[in-house]
Amino acid sequence: MDCVGICGSDVHYWQTGACGHFVLKEPMVMGHEASGVVAKIGSKVKTLKPGDRVAIEPGVPCRVCEFCKTGRYHLCPDIAFCATPPFHGNLVRYYKHAADFCYKFCKTGRYHLCPDIAFCATPPFHRNLVRYYKHAADFCYKLPDHVSMEEGALLEPLSVGIHACRRGGVTAGASVLVLGAGPIGLVTLLAARAMGASNILITDILQSRLDFAAKLGANHTLLVTRDLSEADLVRKVHELMGTHPDISIDASGAQATVRGALLATKSGGVAVLVGMGSPELTVPLAGAVAREVDIRGIFRYVNEYPIALSMVSKSICLSYPIALSMVSSGLIDVKPLVTHHFSMEETLQAYETARRGDGIKVMIHVQPRDANNCKKF
Amino acid sequence: MDCVGICGSDVHYWQTGACGHFVLKEPMVMGHEASGVVAKIGSKVKTLKPGDRVAIEPGVPCRVCEFCKTGRYHLCPDIAFCATPPFHGNLVRYYKHAADFCYKFCKTGRYHLCPDIAFCATPPFHRNLVRYYKHAADFCYKLPDHVSMEEGALLEPLSVGIHACRRGGVTAGASVLVLGAGPIGLVTLLAARAMGASNILITDILQSRLDFAAKLGANHTLLVTRDLSEADLVRKVHELMGTHPDISIDASGAQATVRGALLATKSGGVAVLVGMGSPELTVPLAGAVAREVDIRGIFRYVNEYPIALSMVSKSICLSYPIALSMVSSGLIDVKPLVTHHFSMEETLQAYETARRGDGIKVMIHVQPRDANNCKKF
Amino acid sequence: MDCVGICGSDVHYWQTGACGHFVLKEPMVMGHEASGVVAKIGSKVKTLKPGDRVAIEPGVPCRVCEFCKTGRYHLCPDIAFCATPPFHGNLVRYYKHAADFCYKFCKTGRYHLCPDIAFCATPPFHRNLVRYYKHAADFCYKLPDHVSMEEGALLEPLSVGIHACRRGGVTAGASVLVLGAGPIGLVTLLAARAMGASNILITDILQSRLDFAAKLGANHTLLVTRDLSEADLVRKVHELMGTHPDISIDASGAQATVRGALLATKSGGVAVLVGMGSPELTVPLAGAVAREVDIRGIFRYVNEYPIALSMVSKSICLSYPIALSMVSSGLIDVKPLVTHHFSMEETLQAYETARRGDGIKVMIHVQPRDANNCKKF
Amino acid sequence: MDCVGICGSDVHYWQTGACGHFVLKEPMVMGHEASGVVAKIGSKVKTLKPGDRVAIEPGVPCRVCEFCKTGRYHLCPDIAFCATPPFHGNLVRYYKHAADFCYKFCKTGRYHLCPDIAFCATPPFHRNLVRYYKHAADFCYKLPDHVSMEEGALLEPLSVGIHACRRGGVTAGASVLVLGAGPIGLVTLLAARAMGASNILITDILQSRLDFAAKLGANHTLLVTRDLSEADLVRKVHELMGTHPDISIDASGAQATVRGALLATKSGGVAVLVGMGSPELTVPLAGAVAREVDIRGIFRYVNEYPIALSMVSKSICLSYPIALSMVSSGLIDVKPLVTHHFSMEETLQAYETARRGDGIKVMIHVQPRDANNCKKF
Repeated sequence: MDCVGICGSDVHYWQTGACGHFVLKEPMVMGHEASGVVAKIGSKVKTLKPGDRVAIEPGVPCRVCEFCKTGRYHLCPDIAFCATPPFHGNLVRYYKHAADFCYKFCKTGRYHLCPDIAFCATPPFHRNLVRYYKHAADFCYKLPDHVSMEEGALLEPLSVGIHACRRGGVTAGASVLVLGAGPIGLVTLLAARAMGASNILITDILQSRLDFAAKLGANHTLLVTRDLSEADLVRKVHELMGTHPDISIDASGAQATVRGALLATKSGGVAVLVGMGSPELTVPLAGAVAREVDIRGIFRYVNEYPIALSMVSKSICLSYPIALSMVSSGLIDVKPLVTHHFSMEETLQAYETARRGDGIKVMIHVQPRDANNCKKF
Repeated sequence: MDCVGICGSDVHYWQTGACGHFVLKEPMVMGHEASGVVAKIGSKVKTLKPGDRVAIEPGVPCRVCEFCKTGRYHLCPDIAFCATPPFHGNLVRYYKHAADFCYKFCKTGRYHLCPDIAFCATPPFHRNLVRYYKHAADFCYKLPDHVSMEEGALLEPLSVGIHACRRGGVTAGASVLVLGAGPIGLVTLLAARAMGASNILITDILQSRLDFAAKLGANHTLLVTRDLSEADLVRKVHELMGTHPDISIDASGAQATVRGALLATKSGGVAVLVGMGSPELTVPLAGAVAREVDIRGIFRYVNEYPIALSMVSKSICLSYPIALSMVSSGLIDVKPLVTHHFSMEETLQAYETARRGDGIKVMIHVQPRDANNCKKF
Repeated sequence: MDCVGICGSDVHYWQTGACGHFVLKEPMVMGHEASGVVAKIGSKVKTLKPGDRVAIEPGVPCRVCEFCKTGRYHLCPDIAFCATPPFHGNLVRYYKHAADFCYKFCKTGRYHLCPDIAFCATPPFHRNLVRYYKHAADFCYKLPDHVSMEEGALLEPLSVGIHACRRGGVTAGASVLVLGAGPIGLVTLLAARAMGASNILITDILQSRLDFAAKLGANHTLLVTRDLSEADLVRKVHELMGTHPDISIDASGAQATVRGALLATKSGGVAVLVGMGSPELTVPLAGAVAREVDIRGIFRYVNEYPIALSMVSKSICLSYPIALSMVSSGLIDVKPLVTHHFSMEETLQAYETARRGDGIKVMIHVQPRDANNCKKF
Repeated sequence: MDCVGICGSDVHYWQTGACGHFVLKEPMVMGHEASGVVAKIGSKVKTLKPGDRVAIEPGVPCRVCEFCKTGRYHLCPDIAFCATPPFHGNLVRYYKHAADFCYKFCKTGRYHLCPDIAFCATPPFHRNLVRYYKHAADFCYKLPDHVSMEEGALLEPLSVGIHACRRGGVTAGASVLVLGAGPIGLVTLLAARAMGASNILITDILQSRLDFAAKLGANHTLLVTRDLSEADLVRKVHELMGTHPDISIDASGAQATVRGALLATKSGGVAVLVGMGSPELTVPLAGAVAREVDIRGIFRYVNEYPIALSMVSKSICLSYPIALSMVSSGLIDVKPLVTHHFSMEETLQAYETARRGDGIKVMIHVQPRDANNCKKF
């Protein structure tokens, strides 16, 4: 393993021992936003060889159910997904898994309070498992030389953003409202731009996040304050955008933003809900129904890793540097998203940073930073 | 005009003076499920001639806005729709509009309490309007000889059912759950069958409606009783159907049925909401999002009249009577839906019948029944 | 194994040793339209048990390539498909494969001239293979008790018809032109009806086939004679249908019918090409392009077996016999398609019958007819 | 009128008196790629006012036929399209139409040989028509201040490119092969980039065009020489792209490029044919059918003008100049496409330049260049 990013769900598991309806019953290795180097391959693998640097799509489905056969393998009820119980994640070193010191907490059964959950899978019976992180070869994507391991790990959240945009039908010239400028809101913004959206407004409750979003290419930003009524929010969105958004993407999960998405979207448009904080919400459904605003949830991603990789890998024609700004269309620079770097030994500190929400994306380096990159950055 | 059916929205306007966010501010002629005979045509009309028997699609859009140009003219904000204020409906005779007796109520301003709302548009200034019911020629559909005027009027609710099924993606072999066996639930059932659904369960709180639905071709019926918990409802649906429904269509609008639709639908499936009683609902949205169950509202219909007509018109090969049952695939018999017939003079009685919910569809005959049919039925 | 139908491609292999770009290099067992009884199951199979009567989808894909993951596994380049070299078909008995007598032809290398190709896989080294026909459990579909083994075998050609209709977008109220009334044209007709097409014209060069098609529910038939010009064919199609077809499906593969499909289809419609006789065709492409008539080929089927099974299995509500003709919508009766029955010992005779084109579908019974049916028909 | 670009079809009409099956029977004003200034508005027009600078979508459909109502108004059989007989184009000044000198040729009936076809509509009975170029308000798109009149005129060819990409389903991460680097090939390239294609190869027979395409952002270019066999072309495309293209777009219309598109496209992909030189082509259809490569023609554009305008209008966040290169995603710079400028008086010279194929796009300025631009460029 090389780079492993920290996701909000990781922090959730760490703090509460659960995430949505997934509840931990025993210690679990964290991590699912990852890149690494192939150590060994199975006898039938033709597409990879030891030494290949790869991004790792973290879920491997059953391949035989209706969902798998119809191209929606992410809905497979038997998918084995990193760091979703009962499956361990991939925040591990392959050669040595030094984590004995968290033994005590785990033994007490209060493993989710373990100060170092990343190393929790420590009882002897787990050692072999984590020593070799086995994964289906077809869910490993070989990275071109000029793509760094960090970018490889960032394909995971970027795939979520691309999936949200594809589910919403973002296309050339679309007007897109993104609610929430956290990591998921920002990758959604990047994906929407790359897919041709020409009018994007992003909202948040923190001005600092909006500033960051503007640097990443948001056309408009809107600070949501406590005294802003629902009707005013919708009116401001329409004013700033100069139109009703074709697609609204809620990347926050709060009832207020879900309501805003339903109310602001153009008749006949799509409201995409990326995730939900609470199982039950009270929403103005009648209006959405009468205006044929479609409501679509998203669950992880499906077939989006290759797209994310192609967008990040910038296979541009370098012989024409003057055309560079012109040709950046359709491409994505994810590097600015990583605001904090930690070594594996600093994992606890990394999780604390992620929990405080100090930056955008926190990256843990299982190997020394850039060790596995062909080109240093 | 010939036949005009009564819709739930008509009864709503009659009883409350409003329907959703549409509020009556002056007397309005009722009626939008209608068929008639062409009396006069405009100078540029090439497709119709006086004497043609036609079904009348009740909404005429602006034709120039974004919605009209993208094929979703039903979402046109300037659509003129029969019996939706400020537009009158088509429950009128073209030659004489005898309705003077309701004058009093209307004058008092409490027109929605008028005992005879169908004739409300009576002040002199309305006479001309209703004397000649003008309509865009391209929204009149010529009926073949063997299609009756009643069937012509029934194209309106049937179009709603077809639109619901098209929005839900009902296709060959689909499993469809219909919640509610009122008129809209039943036309949805007929449409779903005709579009190839092979496993349809319909629910209701009245056994008599379920019996009727079974006669129309429902594969399974489920009586919803007060003591049936939400979880049990979902479990029973899955048991009876032998699978999770690909598409759930709520034709009731109650919070309980909307919830049932979201919970029962297969992961990756579609929940169609045909209409809503209350502007705000509390729903288990997080589960629907995480299972990628799409939620789609419907608003009337768009481009569905020609489909409805083709399905009703049974253009079958009559020279092979022995094959008749075989070839009925893809066709719809809407006639059993009409349970009550009234003449125009009995309009009030007709509305009372509709309000009591005694039957399925109540039909008002502006002309003597079957007067305009080429073949008598 | 129980029933195995004969397909045109089987006859092709038998007569010419090839089918399209698939060329036989060694003897091959024929057969891919089949049903059978589960004899043994793998240790992980949960969905079937010995004794289950199943329809067999004949292709098993690699499950890991881009096509498999995006729900188009039929395009998987590594699919193992019955009776497509280098994979044997399933026209075999599981317990004994008596085929020694064709040994001579096969040995000479002119195996495709073998008078009894169905039994060709006879050299000792093939015996084990054919003794147990192994197949992936998820490509076996358990038949309900009231579905016969013959119907099970017929799911294969029916799936082709459903795939053609789905690729063409056949839906409620569609006008469909089917060119060619052979077995594929007829299953396409049945599928189109079941999916809601209300106006179907079928063409052929034999009146007897058209008569059969009319019995199966074609609304119009058109006999194509030698002296009918291309322009006249198109004009007659439009006249008979009363419109330009939304979808044309060529089930013949001749240049003349492909041309007819392109010319007759409505602007903005779809021309589906089910198969092609010749690798190169001269076609009026400019007209199709300028009218945005989409051209879509089809290759076998994907995810259509469950649909075919649901349409054949008639899970109707039997307690309402008077409603029977009404509820037959959306269902398919494939039984009339089988015009000839042979035992396995009569395989050669069966192939001769198929080659002569005497009937519609020729069925070979590996077991005595109806032996495995729960209910006798 | 302000700017009017010259299209290949204009040159065709000029040289041959016809374009495809459209044949001139009398003199016709040329021009359909245009921008202008509103001089007068109809009494019901609310969206525009005199003085507004507008891009003009050149076709106005009947608004009542099936095509208009289903959102495909470009297929309307009664569409009135600039410079497509019997409708004049918009290469006119509104106040004075001085064109008397071409009278002679036109009178002789050999008007298509007229040396100055742009001014052909000269007989007195045409004067009024061309003096005021009337157009439906909803097909005029108001230009923001910072968009020039030239860019307004370029929306026409750009809409063709966007339509081609939309028909092909170009989306995030797509691999796209564009055959032909003329004006249409180049706008297709720009549109594909803006819609998220990350791997684009463009072919041509002229190296100079390929160099231009590379500057516009093509990832790969391939010079097609006479001695390159069909098989080698396909092999080279696959090698350079590192994959089979998801979508191939033929922007040339020659049989060789159409064949290349069919052969090179990935199984299950789409081959888009933008236009056709010859009415009949001999193509390897069987292979495309068996690999489910969809073939889709395009005819002009539909609902693409607003998209083109939004992509050109660069409504970016200007307060973050350092982020400028990043945010250029999803936007299009069409200005480099115009290689030649002429005044209206030099129209003949402009047409000669276009005919010789010297540059990419030739622009005629009815007004002095930049006269109507709010900001000078």
